[in-house]
Amino acid sequence: MGKLPVTFLTDYGTADGFPGICRAVIERESPGTVVIDLSHEVPRHDVRRGAVMLADAVPYLPAGVHLAIVDPGVGGPRREVAVRSAGGRLFVGPDNGLLAPAIERTGGAEAASDLSRSSLRADPVSATFHGRDVFSPVAAALARGAALDEVGDPIDPAALVSTVMPRAMVREGAIAAHALLIDGFGNVALDLRRGEAGFDPDLGDRLEVRSGDHRLSVRAVNTFADAEIGELVLYEDSSGRFALGVREASAAASMEVSLDAEIQLRPDGDDAA
Amino acid sequence: MGKLPVTFLTDYGTADGFPGICRAVIERESPGTVVIDLSHEVPRHDVRRGAVMLADAVPYLPAGVHLAIVDPGVGGPRREVAVRSAGGRLFVGPDNGLLAPAIERTGGAEAASDLSRSSLRADPVSATFHGRDVFSPVAAALARGAALDEVGDPIDPAALVSTVMPRAMVREGAIAAHALLIDGFGNVALDLRRGEAGFDPDLGDRLEVRSGDHRLSVRAVNTFADAEIGELVLYEDSSGRFALGVREASAAASMEVSLDAEIQLRPDGDDAA
Amino acid sequence: MGKLPVTFLTDYGTADGFPGICRAVIERESPGTVVIDLSHEVPRHDVRRGAVMLADAVPYLPAGVHLAIVDPGVGGPRREVAVRSAGGRLFVGPDNGLLAPAIERTGGAEAASDLSRSSLRADPVSATFHGRDVFSPVAAALARGAALDEVGDPIDPAALVSTVMPRAMVREGAIAAHALLIDGFGNVALDLRRGEAGFDPDLGDRLEVRSGDHRLSVRAVNTFADAEIGELVLYEDSSGRFALGVREASAAASMEVSLDAEIQLRPDGDDAA
Repeated sequence: MGKLPVTFLTDYGTADGFPGICRAVIERESPGTVVIDLSHEVPRHDVRRGAVMLADAVPYLPAGVHLAIVDPGVGGPRREVAVRSAGGRLFVGPDNGLLAPAIERTGGAEAASDLSRSSLRADPVSATFHGRDVFSPVAAALARGAALDEVGDPIDPAALVSTVMPRAMVREGAIAAHALLIDGFGNVALDLRRGEAGFDPDLGDRLEVRSGDHRLSVRAVNTFADAEIGELVLYEDSSGRFALGVREASAAASMEVSLDAEIQLRPDGDDAA
Repeated sequence: MGKLPVTFLTDYGTADGFPGICRAVIERESPGTVVIDLSHEVPRHDVRRGAVMLADAVPYLPAGVHLAIVDPGVGGPRREVAVRSAGGRLFVGPDNGLLAPAIERTGGAEAASDLSRSSLRADPVSATFHGRDVFSPVAAALARGAALDEVGDPIDPAALVSTVMPRAMVREGAIAAHALLIDGFGNVALDLRRGEAGFDPDLGDRLEVRSGDHRLSVRAVNTFADAEIGELVLYEDSSGRFALGVREASAAASMEVSLDAEIQLRPDGDDAA
Repeated sequence: MGKLPVTFLTDYGTADGFPGICRAVIERESPGTVVIDLSHEVPRHDVRRGAVMLADAVPYLPAGVHLAIVDPGVGGPRREVAVRSAGGRLFVGPDNGLLAPAIERTGGAEAASDLSRSSLRADPVSATFHGRDVFSPVAAALARGAALDEVGDPIDPAALVSTVMPRAMVREGAIAAHALLIDGFGNVALDLRRGEAGFDPDLGDRLEVRSGDHRLSVRAVNTFADAEIGELVLYEDSSGRFALGVREASAAASMEVSLDAEIQLRPDGDDAA
């Protein structure tokens, strides 16, 4: 059909029909475009979670337009952008860090446009529904082959908000991981999957977790459901990442960690560092 | 591809797979048709809510077939219809008021067909799943270009069930709005958005609300979450309408309003009316 | 477009974006393929529920590829298969009984391939996300016209795991039905719809239910909501099947039935058997 496919990720939820209206706008502006919903259930306003989901997904997505909207600052000073990565992927969304890790994963930003004066914007633009009024018309234009400088004003791609994701590594005999995601229960997902940084714990293994001044013992369990009440455990979450959780309490609070904080893991009782 | 796109709105929910089966029927009867899900989470049997969602969405929808099913009377005497509006839009669904506001918004009904003896109906038609057995085959036929009189028996469009939506207006110095939607918590959404009827309250403003014999003071807040327990507040809901709510109680009950009831708003302490 | 449509049923849920990534893989491997989501809300790991949903839906689905994934044994010894039924339908999924009733309903298995050494598998295949790494690439290949023996190694279709669904019948004056589905509340859906096996109870009728040594009296009600607390009732569920439920208790436990157990229904007070 000669049109690029569009993948679509938001925190809109599906009840109110907002993703459907965006899809309708894309179809109206670029008939026949294939739109693939990744998810519309990113936790509301959780930019980091959306960024991780998009970056995790992008290696599997068809080359095309990646429309992503998690935009707590809608109506405020954050920019609205379209970006082309070195790998030829096109990204559309708010310039708040949501797109950055996926852009990085597909080669880094090669060109970018600011959408604030785009001729494609609805007139008037609503106060809060820029998905419908700005981002979807731009995604549709790119899907039907518009150039980046046709959808907005060229800007320096180096000036985009950058939130390259942390990466776990081995350092001084320990694994230095980071708090990649913290959910509403205080569970902390790490930038660490099985096999990464040589990490391959057996079920039941005990590890020492260091975070700031905290040194805590943690048990590797199969699922979070295997934890005792109040026990700090390490488990693999649904996306395959190791996570730290305390049943019926907050691991983030008990370890006093915030996003991107370093969290070290080593065999329990190991005083090598 | 020469086929009209179909937009699709229901109260089916997604768990049981009913929308998917309807989409499958449309694909079977009209291969390659683009189907855009608006939402399948209209609160069950809430015809008014579905009507508002459809009418809100329709200015953004591509010209084509608008299939909508919220049908508490399925199997009963309400008609099943296909309707063309003066704006050239095609609507398919039960004739219970669900379609009327969107039809009105796209120019009013120009032609209509009764589907009760349509040759497109499944044989037999199930007792409750007319989405699959009646509405989807008709939507598919219209998508592939069938004329309205090929999918059913022509009827007088003036005889369609009419529920044109109320509209807020200024009257005697007050804004006369209406109870457009009442949700399960008793929150009352008004037919009033910011800027309509000159209404543009500041946060923290106090207004007087009159409904029947009730005169109540209401505070304008940013979100419903800003209300005190038991306090009547005015806030903008997710669709951009002003709504009245009482935290942990029912605004509809405390004001004794039902759907379409007039609700007047004026500056608090203003005795001009 | 010359490509077969793909229908898609899983227990993935929609929050984490797993169905979206599978759709993206299908689009990448077979651009322009129509993918129809049936549901991604099969209760987690409930193979039987998924099998019933697929078999219920298949008469309404366009001829094409039916991709279905409810796979509690992922990573274990169960096979991964692609199957062609005598009716020309193609099925892709785990060989754990999920596909069998739908295959049976479309003529029975005519040919099958084992996907364990398929050249289409991702390299490496993840531990748990075979939907993305195995099943979606295979579904995409079949959608674009690959033959069954191109996507895997031919196997004897008679060796597929078989779970043909039970079927209610009349026997000795009673209806011999079966426990087709048992939900998390212990409600038991029967393999019996209105009109099947001549069963057409009036509202308020009392019936005798026999299961093992249990003989219980049950009242036919319109919806489960009409039951008294603790009362065993018979009602039609959302898919049109008769089901047995006890309000605020488990019908399965009170009748001591497990999946596929025979449950007899006859007029109450009838001692003919």
